[in-house]
Amino acid sequence: MTIPPLALTMGDPAGVGPELAARAWHALRDTGQPFVWIGDPLLLDGHAPYGIVHEPGHADAVFASALPVLPLTLPAPVTPGTPDPANGAAVVESIARAVELTLLGRTGAVVTAPIAKSVLRAGGFQHPGHTEYLADLCGVAGQEWMMLASPQLRVVPVTIHVSLRDAIAALSTDLIVRAGRALARALHEDLGASGRIAVAGLNPHAGEEGLMGVEDQTIVAPAIAILRAEGIAAFGPLPPDTMFTEAARRRYDAALCMYHDQALIPLKTLDMAHGVNVTLGLPIVRTSPDHGTAFDIAGTGRADPSSLIAALHMARDMAATRAAQGHIK
Amino acid sequence: MTIPPLALTMGDPAGVGPELAARAWHALRDTGQPFVWIGDPLLLDGHAPYGIVHEPGHADAVFASALPVLPLTLPAPVTPGTPDPANGAAVVESIARAVELTLLGRTGAVVTAPIAKSVLRAGGFQHPGHTEYLADLCGVAGQEWMMLASPQLRVVPVTIHVSLRDAIAALSTDLIVRAGRALARALHEDLGASGRIAVAGLNPHAGEEGLMGVEDQTIVAPAIAILRAEGIAAFGPLPPDTMFTEAARRRYDAALCMYHDQALIPLKTLDMAHGVNVTLGLPIVRTSPDHGTAFDIAGTGRADPSSLIAALHMARDMAATRAAQGHIK
Repeated sequence: MTIPPLALTMGDPAGVGPELAARAWHALRDTGQPFVWIGDPLLLDGHAPYGIVHEPGHADAVFASALPVLPLTLPAPVTPGTPDPANGAAVVESIARAVELTLLGRTGAVVTAPIAKSVLRAGGFQHPGHTEYLADLCGVAGQEWMMLASPQLRVVPVTIHVSLRDAIAALSTDLIVRAGRALARALHEDLGASGRIAVAGLNPHAGEEGLMGVEDQTIVAPAIAILRAEGIAAFGPLPPDTMFTEAARRRYDAALCMYHDQALIPLKTLDMAHGVNVTLGLPIVRTSPDHGTAFDIAGTGRADPSSLIAALHMARDMAATRAAQGHIK
Repeated sequence: MTIPPLALTMGDPAGVGPELAARAWHALRDTGQPFVWIGDPLLLDGHAPYGIVHEPGHADAVFASALPVLPLTLPAPVTPGTPDPANGAAVVESIARAVELTLLGRTGAVVTAPIAKSVLRAGGFQHPGHTEYLADLCGVAGQEWMMLASPQLRVVPVTIHVSLRDAIAALSTDLIVRAGRALARALHEDLGASGRIAVAGLNPHAGEEGLMGVEDQTIVAPAIAILRAEGIAAFGPLPPDTMFTEAARRRYDAALCMYHDQALIPLKTLDMAHGVNVTLGLPIVRTSPDHGTAFDIAGTGRADPSSLIAALHMARDMAATRAAQGHIK
């Protein structure tokens, strides 16, 4: 299935985004899915040859010999490792253009490079984060869910960037059901997986019949019952410590987790380099590498492009699966 | 360093303990550290040849040709997979004799086979669990800590078998400091390790400067400061999701974790088969396999002896390290 070029955003221009875009192009130019980079071409000097395009559709012809660029102009000079809020509006514009082009079907998916939320906020950005901004641009604010995927494991945390105490307080049957539905849909429509969802318990040993906490019986189990009644192959609540072993992972396509570290500890412990962040619940495909701006090593050439390359591969595969099923936007 | 034979307890006679003792003997008879099994020899029929000894010191001469047994007699017949509270007193006696012999220096360490707490309770056993009973027998009740160790990772959870909500409520600077001291001492005296302790944060990203919970700043960080002031090489609080990667694990000898699954998810995800449970804070060395009685497969020959063999190896190594340093009991 041929899909339009992917849209890769600039991310923070003082982070590792530009150099990783160049390295990903070097890795994929011969055999990979074409992508177009939306950023200031000056940032690529010394990293990769580039070709300015004004239509994503022209990227395919350029890709084998140069990184296709939809150009943006940064107002302030860039020093790697030193972010500047003056360039924040251009960082945001790169994201907005990628989403717009993908909603129009002119690019096949959005792959985002890391941004620094604190820098963007200083520049007036009002959204809690990257993902919330994307959901808002797509008109589905509040319906987005984060999935982390590596070759060994896919996880969706039901609660994310809150304290552990607040995560427990926020946990509800409704929240788990909504996350489970979004995950089941993504497994079917985007990932071509059979849709078996392992649901983690909240407490040690999934509470062991209520001996160690009642939430697994009162909150998690009812959510699984609702999902199953809808035809979703969810099962659990499982003891969290034994559900990520190699043998256990063979029994499911993705794990629904109750809090951030329950999901991210196994994922990153198994494979730090190839994790990909996928946003579920959007009308478009969006992936991103599972790392930050890495200001500390930006410009040194030491950043590892594995996660970005994995994100590009996954975006291509997801967009192709959607297209094959007639779901492409 | 030669140490006395290890004492291996019977565990629940209807569980996998007896057959695993036999399989461990088959695996270790030629090259391994001798051990003596404290149980009813009838349970070994069909599994291994055995030799009754009445002194642990006689085990060495027997070990190459038969499993040495310090005999106990069970009052009730045993059906694999069907535990019987009538045999509970003998299960407890096996543990008590192993501890007594090891406190006297006649056995080198205690390795315990799995018991079923609910079965023992029905038989009148008053202790919350195996480990608490051992601490009580050693006269150090309340000073025991659980360590899980595999070839890749050692973890000590500061809180264990309580709900996640109660674990957060129970967390205190004092608790972390006491666990850290016990761990530092064990790393030095028992494990011959350099003593670098990675301390996990409680919250995602270790709270990210208080944005996601304050406990990392108000409870965990002060504990680390106290440990460091005592000369213990503790560092953190670390973001829990990235501290168990291969690269991160190279920087420490053990991880001090804030709750059960934060410790056990990475340990079991990395290596389910070779995890060993070690009790810190006792005057004797005690290890056990990291699995339960497995009543569902008892008697079928399908139980994997890897964890018990690893527990025997670790007990031998720890006892030898203690002995070399003059700490042996």
